[in-house]
Amino acid sequence: MDGVVTDLWLIGIGTGNPRHATLEAVQAIRNAALILLPRKGRDKADLADLRHTILRNCDSTAPIIEFDMPVRDDTLPYLQRVTKWHDEIATIWATAIKQSGLSGPVALLVWGDPGLYDSTLRIAARLQPAPRVRVVPGITALQALTAAHAIPFNTLNGAVTITTGRRLRDHGWPKGADTVAVMLDSQCSFRDLPPDGLHIWWGAFLGMPEQVLAAGPLATFAQPIVDLRATSRLRHGWIMDSYILRRQDMTTA
Amino acid sequence: MDGVVTDLWLIGIGTGNPRHATLEAVQAIRNAALILLPRKGRDKADLADLRHTILRNCDSTAPIIEFDMPVRDDTLPYLQRVTKWHDEIATIWATAIKQSGLSGPVALLVWGDPGLYDSTLRIAARLQPAPRVRVVPGITALQALTAAHAIPFNTLNGAVTITTGRRLRDHGWPKGADTVAVMLDSQCSFRDLPPDGLHIWWGAFLGMPEQVLAAGPLATFAQPIVDLRATSRLRHGWIMDSYILRRQDMTTA
Ligand SMILES: C[S@@+](CC[C@H](N)C(=O)[O-])C[C@H]1O[C@@H](n2cnc3c(N)ncnc32)[C@H](O)[C@@H]1O
Ligand SMILES: C[S@@+](CC[C@H](N)C(=O)[O-])C[C@H]1O[C@@H](n2cnc3c(N)ncnc32)[C@H](O)[C@@H]1O
Repeated sequence: MDGVVTDLWLIGIGTGNPRHATLEAVQAIRNAALILLPRKGRDKADLADLRHTILRNCDSTAPIIEFDMPVRDDTLPYLQRVTKWHDEIATIWATAIKQSGLSGPVALLVWGDPGLYDSTLRIAARLQPAPRVRVVPGITALQALTAAHAIPFNTLNGAVTITTGRRLRDHGWPKGADTVAVMLDSQCSFRDLPPDGLHIWWGAFLGMPEQVLAAGPLATFAQPIVDLRATSRLRHGWIMDSYILRRQDMTTA
Repeated sequence: MDGVVTDLWLIGIGTGNPRHATLEAVQAIRNAALILLPRKGRDKADLADLRHTILRNCDSTAPIIEFDMPVRDDTLPYLQRVTKWHDEIATIWATAIKQSGLSGPVALLVWGDPGLYDSTLRIAARLQPAPRVRVVPGITALQALTAAHAIPFNTLNGAVTITTGRRLRDHGWPKGADTVAVMLDSQCSFRDLPPDGLHIWWGAFLGMPEQVLAAGPLATFAQPIVDLRATSRLRHGWIMDSYILRRQDMTTA
């Protein structure tokens, strides 16, 4: 069975702060037989660095195989492009594991929580024969956001809609929602909403030394946040941001 | 300034598994000058136990003040009842801290993440003078749920609505949602939905040795889950459960 993945561990590592790692994550990293790590790209160098910092902190002795992420084929329509990309990553993993000749649990360090806007589980589902998949939960960007602002995620017994920038642009404010949490938004889609009565809590580089926060009524804070995002992005060469919008009549509840 | 809270730390401890604690939570518990702990009630004894287990694991040497949770006044309408109860808890905290004569950061261990369906932040907002509040994020029941089932939280770039049992009963399936995550539901409110085309992933005692899971099409799994919940509740004397519902045409995306 050597070189075949029978156990695949997807380990959430939090969103920028190495101390987001849970005791379960630290233990899992220590117990892994092999760690698969995407190689540091030109962009987002800091993300790859975080994984190395965490591995160091865990005193992990497992061999690490670094792999290059395949390039997405931008000529394909969205769904086909993503499907092909996931297929390719699964093949890279399988090949790397086979070549290692190692057996035992293979670990992947996943940004945030492996369940939230992450494709690792979908890629894992492509492996043949199907491995036992273990998921170790991790602190998400939205938790880092509410913690940094020291605000509740929901209003008293209220609902929260988690969505993407694209969906917010395409569908507008979700019907009946009082709180909306937005990720994967490179376009400051909050600008497309009628701002009246909305409050925004925004954060970039959450959990990292570069963390930037801003919060206030959307009507007056939309443009300052757009500017702050542009400046921060320029300064660091990349950015990751998330935000929460709440109907203002709900913010005291 | 002795006996006055200038720093209040709300530390998320995860949802049943002591290894959910993050390195940041462990450190914060170690650095606290005083820990406020709700006294073990007759019910939910296991919840108080978890807090003690975590404190032991952290080698915390800070003094612990245990306090009795006030009783809710069931004769009042819901909002008034909750408001009064939060006021009373804030007074109990303030009194306990004052009597301790201690100064330095006061820590509260919060189930799951302090931002998600939890009143600690709202109670903290009542303290006078207002302390600096620090929130340490923790693994939520929904993350423990998706991890236990090894499923993604969202469909590919899809939205997720997080809601309560009561809201699901009162408002039905949220307009346009493909995934709905439900907490605070003692009444198996999924029974009130037209089950066709829905898939359910359910879990109780997530992260604990008592963990129970069930998943399948809602049409065939609603009744078995109702029965399983009743049996588990009878066996342990209490229960905490959560679930995710997804439109079945989305489950492969
Ligand atoms: C591919 S998703 C991964 C989410 C991750 N699995 C999680 O649990 O947070 C990437 C998006 O997460 C958000 N994000 C991740 N890390 C962040 C950070 N440190 N600060 C702000 N936003 C972050 C951004 O919205 C970004 O577009
Ligand atoms: C008052 S809320 C607290 C939520 C917590 N702050 C969190 O982040 O998960 C309590 C609800 O959380 C869910 N819950 C908490 N712990 C759970 C567990 N171990 N297993 C299943 N559900 C749980 C249940 O739906 C329960 O009604």
